[in-house]
Amino acid sequence: MAAIKVHGNPRSPATQRVLATLYEKELEFELVPVDMKTGEHKKPHFLNCLNPFGEIPTLEDGDLKLFESRAINKYIADEYAGKGTRLAFGDNKKKAIIGVWMEVEAHQFESAASKLTWELSLKPVFGKGTPDKAVVEKNEAKLAKVLDIYESRLAQSKYLAGESFSLADLHHLPSIQYLLATEVKKLFDSRLHVKAWVADITARPAWCKVLCHACRSKH
Amino acid sequence: MAAIKVHGNPRSPATQRVLATLYEKELEFELVPVDMKTGEHKKPHFLNCLNPFGEIPTLEDGDLKLFESRAINKYIADEYAGKGTRLAFGDNKKKAIIGVWMEVEAHQFESAASKLTWELSLKPVFGKGTPDKAVVEKNEAKLAKVLDIYESRLAQSKYLAGESFSLADLHHLPSIQYLLATEVKKLFDSRLHVKAWVADITARPAWCKVLCHACRSKH
Repeated sequence: MAAIKVHGNPRSPATQRVLATLYEKELEFELVPVDMKTGEHKKPHFLNCLNPFGEIPTLEDGDLKLFESRAINKYIADEYAGKGTRLAFGDNKKKAIIGVWMEVEAHQFESAASKLTWELSLKPVFGKGTPDKAVVEKNEAKLAKVLDIYESRLAQSKYLAGESFSLADLHHLPSIQYLLATEVKKLFDSRLHVKAWVADITARPAWCKVLCHACRSKH
Repeated sequence: MAAIKVHGNPRSPATQRVLATLYEKELEFELVPVDMKTGEHKKPHFLNCLNPFGEIPTLEDGDLKLFESRAINKYIADEYAGKGTRLAFGDNKKKAIIGVWMEVEAHQFESAASKLTWELSLKPVFGKGTPDKAVVEKNEAKLAKVLDIYESRLAQSKYLAGESFSLADLHHLPSIQYLLATEVKKLFDSRLHVKAWVADITARPAWCKVLCHACRSKH
């Protein structure tokens, strides 16, 4: 039995964020499926033992239980620093730069990207209706502004926090992957450095394993 | 001249978050005022040199420049670990618990609290009209649910991440302080452990210095 367990769903963006990190670190783990359709994550056992906010994923590592995907990833990167890809590294100054771009992902990029992912990709899948055009338009404009800043940044360095791939890049993967299958792809493609960065990070073998996992779970 | 500079505004919640950390760490710093009314933070110099997203605060520590208040605080806590109050500490597991509750603040608490702060406190001050009742009602309900979970958590430990004050608590201070002067105060007061926690963290000498700074800046 693997020491590390992830309670989640391989198609949920937040779960995918954690799976990508585990694959990058070459760690063995068990994915314990949470049945979102029956609302398993809102039931007393889940709320009391795994996440009081009723969201996925939750990580178990021995007797440690953690929720919030970005906090989980930071823990994995620190605890297993010597394994697989280095994802949060360097002296305090270098780590701070990675930290800044992790916050940018969470507060600038994801606020627009997650709404677009919902409207254009997940809403139809979950049978929750058609995309709200006004919401899409507003958030495409917001995302475009963020990506203009990314374009300048990525003209200076290969990755957001410098010349090496880090958690700051990795945290973008789930939303980017969903959006590449929608009209929002044009926002990435029309910016040269962003386009190259997207091609680079989505081609990482660890990310391919996450997609493979998600794909298999559909059957 | 202080080695540490904060470009910000002493009445902005995000700037206050950083000032609270600097005071807790007993570090000397210079606050370089950014004139929000004239849109100084949207001008080329600010965008090119301090924060491409045109937001405050930005920290300068020697030749290092950082934006995003939570990333700045994490850097200060790590870089000046040996000074003043310990704010992010322990082994990787302990740090991970602090990390989880820092993410909870950012993604669960603040999304409701910042909207309420804007509607009930800042909007009238900036002459942007009266509070939108529907927005207030929706976010009060959202905040109440979050505070129910905080109540359970704080019944188990004095602070969110354990028995010691940490960045996870500190990051809540600006919004809590603004909301205590509004009708939202009742949501804190009606929950025993939350009320005691709020009283404890808002009484910290470092936080009093932040308020004093904000107060003086009005004149």
